[in-house]
Amino acid sequence: MAKLYKTWLGSPAEDDVVRDQSQWDVLTAEPGGIDYLETDAGGTAAMWAVPKGCAEDRVLLCVHGGGFVSGSIHTHRKMFGHLAKAAGVRALIVGYPLLPEGVHPLPVDHVVAAYRWLLGQGVDARRIAFAGDSAGGGLAVTAQLRARDQGLPLPAGSLLISPWVDMEVTGGTMVSNSGKDALFNQPWVKELAANFLGGGSPRDPHANALHADLTGLGPIYAQVGDQELLLDDSRRLTEHAEKAGVSVRLDVFPEQQHTFQMMVGRAPEADDAIRRFAEWVGPLLGR
Amino acid sequence: MAKLYKTWLGSPAEDDVVRDQSQWDVLTAEPGGIDYLETDAGGTAAMWAVPKGCAEDRVLLCVHGGGFVSGSIHTHRKMFGHLAKAAGVRALIVGYPLLPEGVHPLPVDHVVAAYRWLLGQGVDARRIAFAGDSAGGGLAVTAQLRARDQGLPLPAGSLLISPWVDMEVTGGTMVSNSGKDALFNQPWVKELAANFLGGGSPRDPHANALHADLTGLGPIYAQVGDQELLLDDSRRLTEHAEKAGVSVRLDVFPEQQHTFQMMVGRAPEADDAIRRFAEWVGPLLGR
Repeated sequence: MAKLYKTWLGSPAEDDVVRDQSQWDVLTAEPGGIDYLETDAGGTAAMWAVPKGCAEDRVLLCVHGGGFVSGSIHTHRKMFGHLAKAAGVRALIVGYPLLPEGVHPLPVDHVVAAYRWLLGQGVDARRIAFAGDSAGGGLAVTAQLRARDQGLPLPAGSLLISPWVDMEVTGGTMVSNSGKDALFNQPWVKELAANFLGGGSPRDPHANALHADLTGLGPIYAQVGDQELLLDDSRRLTEHAEKAGVSVRLDVFPEQQHTFQMMVGRAPEADDAIRRFAEWVGPLLGR
Repeated sequence: MAKLYKTWLGSPAEDDVVRDQSQWDVLTAEPGGIDYLETDAGGTAAMWAVPKGCAEDRVLLCVHGGGFVSGSIHTHRKMFGHLAKAAGVRALIVGYPLLPEGVHPLPVDHVVAAYRWLLGQGVDARRIAFAGDSAGGGLAVTAQLRARDQGLPLPAGSLLISPWVDMEVTGGTMVSNSGKDALFNQPWVKELAANFLGGGSPRDPHANALHADLTGLGPIYAQVGDQELLLDDSRRLTEHAEKAGVSVRLDVFPEQQHTFQMMVGRAPEADDAIRRFAEWVGPLLGR
């Protein structure tokens, strides 16, 4: 996985088929036994992943990552498909505008619109959990805050994969894990944050959950690799949530890279991580 | 594409993510705007690819390749999805047992079972075309012969991508294109054929369309690359079909490798090839 990340970041002289980040899902095994149906979720391009025999009244609303510049409902189809299949529920994988168009708050507004649409389909908020990886992990939290501000009911909880929440990019692991993280370097993360904020404040609570009041949110379960620059984002988010009375769980996976769960079906650590998520979220959604 | 093929065939020290042939679809861009629904088609694992707004009464029955040892409804999802989307029809992508289990006639019987199931869904045979690549191209023809023997109506025609039909492996291009073909060598093709036949005759007309009576088949359109060991399979099949009174078209694409159409959405030659298929099959199916 570290090697593929380095390939993506390498020179164009390397294999262009693999360098294309639209092929991110090459990391993930095909789960099988899942139907995929694209839909318009309140103006947001989205995709249902419907495992055969799942509990259709329970839904993971899944927000893909990619630093606000890459990723799609297609790159994350298989990973979120695995998660939904393991949990025995449907996934609604939602898209949002990427940069340069997708400046804050456009992405978070799209996620909220998709959530509003999902509730309008008759799905009970208590039967919905949000899931997201990296930038999508941050959006999975800020979208809940924005939904609450708009008077929508909160979902049951959150599954966060290496969430990126700190738009100030100040985590200590930005320095201490420098060189261990195969994907990121701090200047690049700062550049992504600046482009995402488009001149807005990096402490805007709808852009940065570390500066938001998280009171009343459902349980949060975050997973992160110990090699990541973004490791401290997970630590600080779960601490911040816990102080607000939110039930939290943080699993730090040794020797793992950013969003290693993309390797599900191909690496035992990723299989284990997805299984832990499924076992945690099943009871939360009443399974 | 040649590079990726060489990577697949290279040493395990190379990138294991890319070497895994279950990730064959890394070649193909995500078409988008298509729903995918797995189904049991008369005992055969299959997948509907349903482009948004397509003519649902028209169907391409698609048989994947992979030398009878690899490939699946998932590896070929995107390529056949592109084809269905371009043609504005549904695709039923069918699986079959692979070796060592899938010895002849098991694969062809599975394709016939899926076709029988499709007819049983109420789809008119005149609104069905068979499509297949490589080993799946051969099966797309032999399945029609076997279906006819069982009293089933023949489909409207065939779209063949680098079809492999000659189980004797005697084409002149097996020698003349040696070294140009990035994927195959003759001994390997012979070994695949022997394993597929399982001791049966390489001239069995249900295993080798070059020895079959093709009278009465609908029009056949074959595409092949001029770098292929299997180039002569397409030439001889279309000649053999033409002698039987079948309407044929053969397009030989210069400087192209085996099943280069897998690059659709990522290479203009593949886009052109898929577009040609779509323009040809549309009127055939009454579009």
